[in-house]
This record gives sequence, C-alpha cells and structure tokens, in this order.
Amino acid sequence: MIKAGILGATGNVGQRFIQLLANHPWFEITALAASERSAGKPYEQVARWRLDTDLPEEVKGLTVVPTKPHDVDADIVFSALPAEEAVKIEAEFAKAGFIVSSNASSFRMEKDVPLVIPEVNPEHLGLIDVQRKNRGWDGAIITNPNCSTIMMAVTLKPLMQFGIENIHVATLQAVSGAGYEGVPSMAIMDNVIPYIGSEEGKMETESLKLLGEFDGKAVKDAPFWVSAACHRVGVLDGHTMSIWARFNKKIAPEKVKEAMIKFDPRLSDLPTSPKKAIIVREEPDRPQPRMDRNQGNGMSISVGRIRAGRADAIQYVCMGHNTIRGAAGASILNAELLKKKRYL
Amino acid sequence: MIKAGILGATGNVGQRFIQLLANHPWFEITALAASERSAGKPYEQVARWRLDTDLPEEVKGLTVVPTKPHDVDADIVFSALPAEEAVKIEAEFAKAGFIVSSNASSFRMEKDVPLVIPEVNPEHLGLIDVQRKNRGWDGAIITNPNCSTIMMAVTLKPLMQFGIENIHVATLQAVSGAGYEGVPSMAIMDNVIPYIGSEEGKMETESLKLLGEFDGKAVKDAPFWVSAACHRVGVLDGHTMSIWARFNKKIAPEKVKEAMIKFDPRLSDLPTSPKKAIIVREEPDRPQPRMDRNQGNGMSISVGRIRAGRADAIQYVCMGHNTIRGAAGASILNAELLKKKRYL
Amino acid sequence: MIKAGILGATGNVGQRFIQLLANHPWFEITALAASERSAGKPYEQVARWRLDTDLPEEVKGLTVVPTKPHDVDADIVFSALPAEEAVKIEAEFAKAGFIVSSNASSFRMEKDVPLVIPEVNPEHLGLIDVQRKNRGWDGAIITNPNCSTIMMAVTLKPLMQFGIENIHVATLQAVSGAGYEGVPSMAIMDNVIPYIGSEEGKMETESLKLLGEFDGKAVKDAPFWVSAACHRVGVLDGHTMSIWARFNKKIAPEKVKEAMIKFDPRLSDLPTSPKKAIIVREEPDRPQPRMDRNQGNGMSISVGRIRAGRADAIQYVCMGHNTIRGAAGASILNAELLKKKRYL
Amino acid sequence: MIKAGILGATGNVGQRFIQLLANHPWFEITALAASERSAGKPYEQVARWRLDTDLPEEVKGLTVVPTKPHDVDADIVFSALPAEEAVKIEAEFAKAGFIVSSNASSFRMEKDVPLVIPEVNPEHLGLIDVQRKNRGWDGAIITNPNCSTIMMAVTLKPLMQFGIENIHVATLQAVSGAGYEGVPSMAIMDNVIPYIGSEEGKMETESLKLLGEFDGKAVKDAPFWVSAACHRVGVLDGHTMSIWARFNKKIAPEKVKEAMIKFDPRLSDLPTSPKKAIIVREEPDRPQPRMDRNQGNGMSISVGRIRAGRADAIQYVCMGHNTIRGAAGASILNAELLKKKRYL
Repeated sequence: MIKAGILGATGNVGQRFIQLLANHPWFEITALAASERSAGKPYEQVARWRLDTDLPEEVKGLTVVPTKPHDVDADIVFSALPAEEAVKIEAEFAKAGFIVSSNASSFRMEKDVPLVIPEVNPEHLGLIDVQRKNRGWDGAIITNPNCSTIMMAVTLKPLMQFGIENIHVATLQAVSGAGYEGVPSMAIMDNVIPYIGSEEGKMETESLKLLGEFDGKAVKDAPFWVSAACHRVGVLDGHTMSIWARFNKKIAPEKVKEAMIKFDPRLSDLPTSPKKAIIVREEPDRPQPRMDRNQGNGMSISVGRIRAGRADAIQYVCMGHNTIRGAAGASILNAELLKKKRYL
Repeated sequence: MIKAGILGATGNVGQRFIQLLANHPWFEITALAASERSAGKPYEQVARWRLDTDLPEEVKGLTVVPTKPHDVDADIVFSALPAEEAVKIEAEFAKAGFIVSSNASSFRMEKDVPLVIPEVNPEHLGLIDVQRKNRGWDGAIITNPNCSTIMMAVTLKPLMQFGIENIHVATLQAVSGAGYEGVPSMAIMDNVIPYIGSEEGKMETESLKLLGEFDGKAVKDAPFWVSAACHRVGVLDGHTMSIWARFNKKIAPEKVKEAMIKFDPRLSDLPTSPKKAIIVREEPDRPQPRMDRNQGNGMSISVGRIRAGRADAIQYVCMGHNTIRGAAGASILNAELLKKKRYL
Repeated sequence: MIKAGILGATGNVGQRFIQLLANHPWFEITALAASERSAGKPYEQVARWRLDTDLPEEVKGLTVVPTKPHDVDADIVFSALPAEEAVKIEAEFAKAGFIVSSNASSFRMEKDVPLVIPEVNPEHLGLIDVQRKNRGWDGAIITNPNCSTIMMAVTLKPLMQFGIENIHVATLQAVSGAGYEGVPSMAIMDNVIPYIGSEEGKMETESLKLLGEFDGKAVKDAPFWVSAACHRVGVLDGHTMSIWARFNKKIAPEKVKEAMIKFDPRLSDLPTSPKKAIIVREEPDRPQPRMDRNQGNGMSISVGRIRAGRADAIQYVCMGHNTIRGAAGASILNAELLKKKRYL
Repeated sequence: MIKAGILGATGNVGQRFIQLLANHPWFEITALAASERSAGKPYEQVARWRLDTDLPEEVKGLTVVPTKPHDVDADIVFSALPAEEAVKIEAEFAKAGFIVSSNASSFRMEKDVPLVIPEVNPEHLGLIDVQRKNRGWDGAIITNPNCSTIMMAVTLKPLMQFGIENIHVATLQAVSGAGYEGVPSMAIMDNVIPYIGSEEGKMETESLKLLGEFDGKAVKDAPFWVSAACHRVGVLDGHTMSIWARFNKKIAPEKVKEAMIKFDPRLSDLPTSPKKAIIVREEPDRPQPRMDRNQGNGMSISVGRIRAGRADAIQYVCMGHNTIRGAAGASILNAELLKKKRYL
C-alpha cells in the first residue's frame, strides 16, 4: 500500500479525500494534516464530519499532524488546501520529496506543472521531469483543474478531432463548490447568484492547457478560445454546464454523440476510473444534478441534449459531481495514473 | 374606466392579472372568464388564490362567466389562456369586436399580429390595421412575447445601434413560468432541469420579430441570429439570463452600460411603466432574482456584470419578474399603449 | 425464489419496490401491474423512472400486466395502490389466493387484518388465520403502517416497558410522501404547509393497534393516546418527528437511551432488516433527514436529543426514510417475516 | 421627531431596523453604531445591504459611529447587538440616560427589566421605575422576547381567560433567525435541523414572564408550564409554531377561535401596530410562512387549524415574520408604547 497524507483534511474537500481513500485498494491514509489548532488531537475530535456516509472507523482516532513535511509520514500527499496557503506549502512538500497531487489552483497554470485529467492529457505528466529539473525538487506537484473546467474538458476531448473553433459555456454550479460555509442559505434560497469569483478565468485558461499539446518540454495551448459565464444555483452537488462548441466546419450532432459514446480513455486498470468517463443520455431533460451526479461513483460525466446550434455549432449539456469528479476524485485518479506511469 | 375582462382568470397568470388590475387607474375588472365548470359561481369559490397578497375584495364576489364573447362584458380582454385554447378563442373574441391583449403564444408569430413590448417596438401596433384588413375583424389581437424573450429583448433594444451580429443566451428560469403545478417539488429540489419545452425556439424567433422593422405593412426580422439554451432552476419568480452579444465591431463595455442607463422609452404616461425600464447594477454579483425581481413593481429589468467578452462580444446578465414583466404586466402595459395610441 | 408481483408499479412507491426487490435474495419480480393504459407495454416505456439509481436491466423489458388476479403470475403481490383502489383490488387478490403485502391504508384498521412492523408486533401475523376464517380467503392481506407512524412506533416499542401515558408528536414530513407530483414546487419552496390530509388521524390510531396486544383472536389497542400535528417541509426524503412521551412515572433519559440502544428485535435473518433498527445519535443536532435517511440502506430509524421533558415526559427526535422504511421497505420486510413464519 | 440610534446597525436585524424606521412618523434615524472597524465611514460603504428593498437614500451617507454612549446622538437606541455584547453595552447606554429598546436576550429575564409585547403586557412597563430605583439609571432598558416566543405569547394572551394548564409547542423556524451567515446552504437544503441552541429554554421561560402578573413591584410568572421543541427548516422568513394548549377544563375550539378573532389590544394609535394583531384563517392548510408572513406589514400573527386536541387541549398553528414581528418591529412597537406612556 502507498502511504497517503491529506493536507487540509478537515475541510469539505479534505473530507471527500478521506471518504474516497478509506477503502482504496492502493492507498492507505497515514497522515491527516490540518491547522496548528487541530494538530495533536484525534481527527474525530477536530473535524466536524459533514458527509452523509459515516466517518470511516480507521480514521476516527488518527492524530492530526501539522501541515509540515517533517510531520507527515506519506509517499504522496493530496492537497485540499486553499490556494493562498497551497502556494507556499505545496512547494515545501515537493521540495521535501513528496509527490503532491493537488486540487488547489495555485500551481495549475505554472508552465512546468502538469495540469492533468487522465482521460484527457495523461502525457502531460512528462512535465514532472521538466519541473524537477527547473526547480531542483525531489518530489513534484501535479494538479487537477477547477471543478467546472474538468467536466467541460473531458467532454471536449473526443470533439477535438472535429476542429473546435471556439466555446461558449454557461455554468449552473452547486453550493458545495464554495465549501461548507461558503454559501449562506439566505444568499441562495429562491435565488441565483450570477457570479463566482475567478471561476470564469479558470475555465477559460485551464481548458486550453488541458487540451493543449505537450512536446516534451512545454505545453502549447489548444488553438481556440473559451468564453465562460458562471452562476451559482441552489443545488448541493453537481455542476451543470451548457455548452456551445463551434467547429471549423459543420458537424452532425449524431457524429458528436457517437464520438462521446465511443470515447474510451483506456483507464480501466485505475480503481477510481468509472466504467464510462462520459455517459450520453437520450432523455430530452437530462442530465440533472440530483439524478445523475452519482453515476460511476461520482466519477462519470453525464451529457445530454446534443443538438445542432447556429453557425456550425453543436450545443449540449454536461454535468458531473463537483466534489468527487471535480475535486477529490480527480486528484486521486491523477495519483493512480502517477502510479501506473511509475512516478509513485 | 375601460372595462376589462380576463380569460383564464383562475390560473397563475390570470391571478396576476387580477392582482395588477385591481387598483388600476384606467381599467376596471368587469368579467372573469374560466372553464364551464367554474362559470356561474363567485370567483372566490372557484379559484384557489395562490398569491401572497390577499384576493382583492371587489373581485371575490364576481360571478365567473364562460369564455365566450357574448358572456363577457368588456372593452378589452386580457388572455391568460393556454396556447392550445387561445388559438381558437382569441380569434373568436377579436372577431366579435374585442381588443385581445394576449399573453399566449398562439398568435405571436403570425405575420399580421403585433408582438409588442412598449419599450421596444411600439410602432408595430400598426399591424393592427393590417390584421383587421386581412381578417375582417372589428377587434384585434395584440401579443406580448414569452417571459424569457421579453427580458432579453428590452436589454437588446438600446444595443441595436451598435450593430448586433449574433446572440448566445443561457437562461436560469423560475418555476412559476410553468404554472402553479407545472414543476413538482420532487423535480426541482436540489436540482436543475436543463430543458424547457419550446422555450428555446421562442427566444430565437420572437426576439427577431420584436427587434425587426415595420414598414407599414409587415415586420422584417432583425438581421442577426439568437441561439438559446434554457434551464429551469429552483427559484420561485424571476428569470435570469446570461447573454453574449457579439457586435459587428468592438464596443467598450462602458458604452454599452451607458446606453442601457440612458435608455428612456418615454412611457412615463403609462401607469404600469416603471420609472426605469432597465436598472443597471454595479455590484459584481447582481442582479439576483430574489433581490431584484420586484424592482419597479416587478416591471423593471435589472442588468449587471456588463463586461467585454471574446471576439467583439459583450457579456451581461439580465433578470426580470417572469409573471409580472414577463406575462400579466406585459399584457397590461401593452393595453395602456393601445389606449395611448387610441386603439382603445 | 418467491415470485413477486407489484401492484401500482409505475408510481413513486412502486418504483421503490422495484429498486429494493431488484437484487433481493428471496424474491424475484415476475409481474408488474399498472393501469389498463399501460398494460401490454414494456415497463421501460410506460414508467417515467424517477429514482437516482438506474432502472434495473431485468425490469426494463417486462411487459406490464393489468391489475387483475388472473393476469398476475406471483406468489405474493406488493401493493403500492392508492387507498381508494386498494380497497377493492387487494380483496380480489386475497380472495384469489395471493398474499398481499400492502402499503395502502385501506385495510390497516380492519379488525382481522394484521398491521405489522416486524420489529414491533410480529405476533400480530396470527390475525391472518382470523382473517381467512372470517372472509373465506385463500390468500391474505397484511399491511404496514403509514410512513410517519412507523418511525414513531418503532421507537416507542422499547419504551413500552416504562408505562407510556400519552404521546404528543409533531412531524416535519418530506415531499416524497405525497407522490411525485403531490407537492408543487410553488407550494413548498421557502414555505411550510402545516397540514397533511388524514395524516394525524392515522398516526393517532395506527400506533395504538401496532403497540396493542394480540390475544389470539383480536388486537386490543395500547392503553394510551397519541396526539399528532403534521407538517410538510421542503425535504425530499425523510420524515422527522419531534416526540413528547409522557410516562406513568419519572424516567431518566439515560434509561430511555439505553433501552433504545439495546433494542434488538432479532431479525438479522431477514435480508432487509438493518443491522440496527434504531440508531441513537449523540450529536446535539441530529438526526437530520439528508444526513441520516440512508442509514441501514434506508431501513434504520435514527433517534437523537433524548432528554427530560416537563411532567414526567421524555422528549426526543426520530427520523427515517419515508419511502423506504416508511413504505416499500416496510412491505418487503413484512413479506420476509411472512416467509420466516411460513405463511409464504 | 424622536432621535433614534441603532446599535448593531450593519447586521441582519440592524438592517430591518433601518428599513422599518426609514419612513417612521415618530422616529428619525440620527445614529448608526457599529464596530470600531466600521466607525467613521459612511453606512453605505461598511454595510452589505441584504434586504430586497433598496437601502433608504437618507441613510446611505450617514457616518457610522462607535457603539459608545458619548458618540451616539439619540433619545432612544434600538439594540440589535449580540447577547454577549449587549450585556455590557446596553447597561452603559441606560446608565448614560438612554432609553434602550433591545432585541437582545441579555436582560430579558432580569427581574427589574420589562419584557414587553404591547398587545400582551403593556403594564409591565411599570418595571422601568423599579429598574431605575434599583440601578440608579437615568435611562432604562426595555426588551422584547425571542422571535419564537413572541408569536406564541400573543396568541396565548386571549386564551388566558380559559385557564391554561400547560403548553406543548413545536417550532419550524426560518433561517433568517440565525443571521445572514448563520445557516449555510449545505446545512439546510433538503434538510431539517432539529435543534436551535438555547431556543427552547427561552420559549419556556420568557413566555411565563410575558403572561405573568405585575403587582407594581415585580412580575409573577404565569401559573403553567411550557415545553418546547425547536427545529430549523428551509424557509427564509417566518416562524411556524404548532401548539397544544391544555386547559383546566374542556373548551370548544369555536370559543378559542372567537377569542382570537375578537382580540383587540387597542393599539391603533401606534404606527407600527397592525390592524389586526391576530389574523385567524379558515383554510385547512394555513398559515404558511411564504404566504402570510407579510400580513400587517409583517406585524400580524396568523393563526389557523384551531381544533380540539386530546385531554382538554386545543391545537392550533401560528406563524409570524421573525425578523419583523419577532425582532426589529417588536422593538419599535415597544418604543411607540413607551412614547404613548410618556417614557419618551
């Protein structure tokens, strides 16, 4: 078993890491790191467990450690740190020899840091060597994209062959994306908030890196633009995205549907990889977050309403579980890929 | 006082008509028409009143009449009929000499029927003469657009001067748009439904007629296309729309904002016209349906997040009250315009 | 395998029956009965599947049959019929030799019909013999209580030893209790409905029969009264109940808690029986429907806030999944008990 | 005009004070006090306005002052302070000669502090003289009860004549009662929280003081007990309460209803007093928070479902707007009573 630590273990995403790693066949939770205030106490005592499955027995009594390399006994650390802390701490861990599989945004757009979705750009892991050379680290940082970007990027991957010209995307995002206390009930009940700080910029840049080409030294952004409009809605989990993908030439919706159905990233040897990365639904009113977010244990992305749009565009809706596929599950799948590729 | 009848008086929009007409300075409710089942009984007894203001006293005892021209004593009828009934009944009323101000979709796209928003295309009322000539009616049908289209069209009006090339719009629509029993709580709680039947088509066609030119005989569609994606969210009232408006040339967001702020349709002599048709908000996270839907007694449209988009586009969010500005209030404002223009 | 039919197979509770029976070790779904309109068509085509797990493969193609004894090939039928239909149809099935495990209210309070919760009054199954003698049926009807009553009755069972004098109960019930289209979103969003038709009466009578004594011929009601106040709240699944149980003498809350924790109905040989019928929680703010409704696969009842009340009363909160523990799961557990007791 | 200051002016209840006092005929807002951090800046700049009516123009530019007597220019101060701060600060203001009309809980149960609802116990204002004598203050503190207690106490007042023996009450409380950020959306969506800290104790004690007798020196608690169970539900505004009132002898529900309908506290000379303190509804499913909370500008309490209960009890449901009738409006009505009684 590979020893796994979790940084930011008491928060929303930290708890998802614990839930998903609890019975993982390859990883064993050996360290839970949190703030100084929590360190030294049993996890059960310092964390307010918020998930609707019970806190795993084996984790309850684990003593929380400070978020410092020499306090963490692990081969890999999963980072659920806030971006402003991650920028310093993740570098410390990588320098100290840890593999850091990070859900934080701090390093995603760094030129020598792989931003990876195993179904989309596994070859970008090659940036690890660049990173180590550049920075002189024994460890490495690998990141997964923002919780909205990931749903979109996976569904765009099989469409790359058709020649994407540009993308408009409007999101309807769940409250869990903002953390447990991020969205007060008084803010969102009977309401929509048409703004999520920094989210649009992340979608517009991260997607191009993900779908870009790695030439052994650097990643060249994909040659199109993405324009995003992000909205918060009263949904617990599951980000919905309405997409217009405009192509260089007219494509039949059936071709697009076929490409999505046939999409097979050949990752069935990774435990967290769902049977189907993309599930195409035929009903006129799906996907829906409450109905479809748990498909593939929360790792499948559901797509529906594939139809022709104006001006050689294809319109469709995609939806996935933002704290599993879009956060903790994404980091874990990356870690599984790292092991498969022998970085671990 | 002008005598006003309401067709479909017991439903969701019918109740809004009653609420808005109850103390109207120009109109007096003289007839409430509903199904045969309800006819002959006092309104209070047959209608299940669903609004959070009390049923107006003067309406409680009004005897409901059948939805037939000879049973309705009125100068104008407001129609809240379902489309499949409206197609026959509204024609009967127009033929019988009534002015029909309709919220139904049945006649909106007919070439000789005005589809009007007073702030946008008051001159289209001229189609009434064409209609009467064509159909030999003494009365006339005048329609207002779909509840989503109306919010978008009003905000596009002041932008026409900049040369619109095309529009992408994604909507987040309230449940009241589907009628009181239209959206079960089990369908929408903790959920999004990425589909509203026929809605996208309505937005894509009605908006072009509204913003088109009337040459005295016919309306020529506005010379651009609209591509819509409609979603239902867990909001009671207030449709939110996220818009990308692409122009023939680059326009500064400040210019767009200024055009919206200065937009003055000069309708202050109409009682239902809000002080401001468009309210431009400066906060980064507005408009929001629960906070802004009652601005201007539900008749103002709130706009926010005006910003530059990719490819000479401007992005913004607009929001308005779908059963007031988007339905009953729209028909009443049209009727006020009819009176001002001496059609009534 | 025992052949199982489902009456009312397309509705909310009917779908839960399918979900719970799909991989059941003892029962095999052999008949899905619904209205004449649906009969003759594959289930997949006539049912609008509403659950967030997929429609089981083996059920998709099953041809729906009419709700008539000679069309149903089964040893037992589970009834999800509405009460007004169940009163006639269930009797026909019982007369025709079927065991009917019913979730409908029609026969619950009949003197010769067992109203059973396996954890509470398994011995009431003896009424089957009385019923057959009375009615000359080869089959039999056995019922489970209303979805609110069941949560309360299970938690009262271990308290019977302390001498209950009376019960006040206020409920906060989920919308799924009213069926898929039972509660419009416009009725319940940002709202509470302080009324559920007939519900209070059911809680006040059914609970006394359940906790009553069976002397071999009849059931004598439990010797106390229950006073209920029922409310609908904006929750999808999970009925919460706030209970004041007044006793003949003062009881320490610790005694009550201990009795609940130790409560063991010895049903571990029944596949649907949860490991723990009652889960006692120590957190000050639990149980909560969204967090606890799926405990024990939806069959456990969660209890919390056990505390002393005024006048020798104990107060506590209990909560359980209303369409599993309170409906389909209850009927299935009863059927398992029937098999164990060799009625099947 | 009486000069009015608001302590805790930026919070949820503070904003309600501003909204309700903005056009008040007797009071003029002359001071907005908040934390040191906000002091010295215009209100508009430091407060995040959360109400769906606009921030009143005349308040926007008011410079926020520190929460200290010598910084506040006012005849009366309305306190929306948190209890832990109020205990010290309110005493300072009273000592400095201010009348403090407080919504905080700190002084409510002090023997020489009036806890008053004008409709219930206006004569308790006499405690002001006792208070001044005891404490040597020039000013005085007067309090209104907790937001749940107030709804119940007003409805119990007209029932006192029938001889109340005891009360069971279960509440379904709105999220606004916990302050803007008090209840995260992730805590309450699709959920119920069966616990509100300290709330049950407040209801059980404050109600007895309110309904108690003042003999010129002290208040003697009402001679019965109240047992409360408090629950948070997903409602924005409006606390619903389900009440069992047990009497010394059997009372017909019609008598109770009549007493509530006839209840007239003769306060029509107070501007904030609603036309009817209690509105009795006849519909089987009312009152409902979203439908009825704004009755009487949020100051009326709606009652429904008055019915006979077991054991000489009457059951009913009452509901009122928790941040208007239950907080800011209550303090303002108390201030109006103070003026009428010449304490101001």
